[in-house]
Amino acid sequence: MNEKGLLIVLSGPSGCGKGTMIKEIQKQGDYVVSVSATTRAPREGEIDKVHYHFISREAFQQMIAEDALLEYASYCDNYYGTPRQKVDELRAQGKNVILEIEVQGAFQIKERCEDAILIFTIPPSVDELRRRLHKRGTETEEVIEKRIARSLEELPLAKKYDYIILNDALEDAVDDFLAVIRAEHLRSANVKLDF
Amino acid sequence: MNEKGLLIVLSGPSGCGKGTMIKEIQKQGDYVVSVSATTRAPREGEIDKVHYHFISREAFQQMIAEDALLEYASYCDNYYGTPRQKVDELRAQGKNVILEIEVQGAFQIKERCEDAILIFTIPPSVDELRRRLHKRGTETEEVIEKRIARSLEELPLAKKYDYIILNDALEDAVDDFLAVIRAEHLRSANVKLDF
Repeated sequence: MNEKGLLIVLSGPSGCGKGTMIKEIQKQGDYVVSVSATTRAPREGEIDKVHYHFISREAFQQMIAEDALLEYASYCDNYYGTPRQKVDELRAQGKNVILEIEVQGAFQIKERCEDAILIFTIPPSVDELRRRLHKRGTETEEVIEKRIARSLEELPLAKKYDYIILNDALEDAVDDFLAVIRAEHLRSANVKLDF
Repeated sequence: MNEKGLLIVLSGPSGCGKGTMIKEIQKQGDYVVSVSATTRAPREGEIDKVHYHFISREAFQQMIAEDALLEYASYCDNYYGTPRQKVDELRAQGKNVILEIEVQGAFQIKERCEDAILIFTIPPSVDELRRRLHKRGTETEEVIEKRIARSLEELPLAKKYDYIILNDALEDAVDDFLAVIRAEHLRSANVKLDF
């Protein structure tokens, strides 16, 4: 009698606050963030099954062959992907699952799961994006400018998402997200008519 | 620079509280309820341009010929319909327009305005619908049972709407409605990307 949980894909420029948004969202409802699988080695402090499912190259290729990934990509000679089974299990339990992934992965998901909800989050301006990336203080000036250039390239793809949320004030962005989820639960395909 | 207003169609069984919902919704935001045109004579207390645009049969047929109606139907030898121009004007001003219309009219609208949002509201149960119709006290027992039979026939058509809202507690139904509208404003087609 559980209503099936939603599959929500969240993308957006690096530094526009997706991580902070997701933390806030999780405080306000029953959302599970999907853990990706990767073939790269764990970095210091990274825990298996928490930050990533760290698996071997053979295991990853096996998953590709078995169509066990909702999306995957290779980056710097390593694979990254979203295992399908866990997502399906959680949704069957009525849990809403959030994937924080890149644009290309998002489009792969939409092809495989028509009912996935694609949300693109944008910063209020390029200057604000630059400010946030500087504030984070984890990247050099050069890397920051590269990230910004890439964000501007990807921005037109936001129009291929279902929703676009401006992340200016965090609280408003979170309320927008929650309104989208509330509305999606009311989509006629998701409502059971039992009389 | 106004964002275009939304066109929202609200349908649902007679007696399930659409009128009360709309009154509540109007208190909480800038919503205009569209006034229908009709060829029937005004009843006592009905005001032209408030309850209906009361127009002649010739004027109505002229509007049909000029494709000036978003939808229309004939009922008991009279025409009823939604004039397109006023709706377009309000939306251009950024106002959200609500149409409270029947199922067939709703589908006509969707054909003409792809971006119309169709919301079907349902009562919690047949017994509750019967109770509400009795409470209203404006119809005979026979009419009430006819209305209920018709509602049950139409209910499967709710699945062809975009959203289904259960009107059990009024406050929740209104919050559902407002969430749908907030989400629809965030649809990528409705968001301007200006950087």
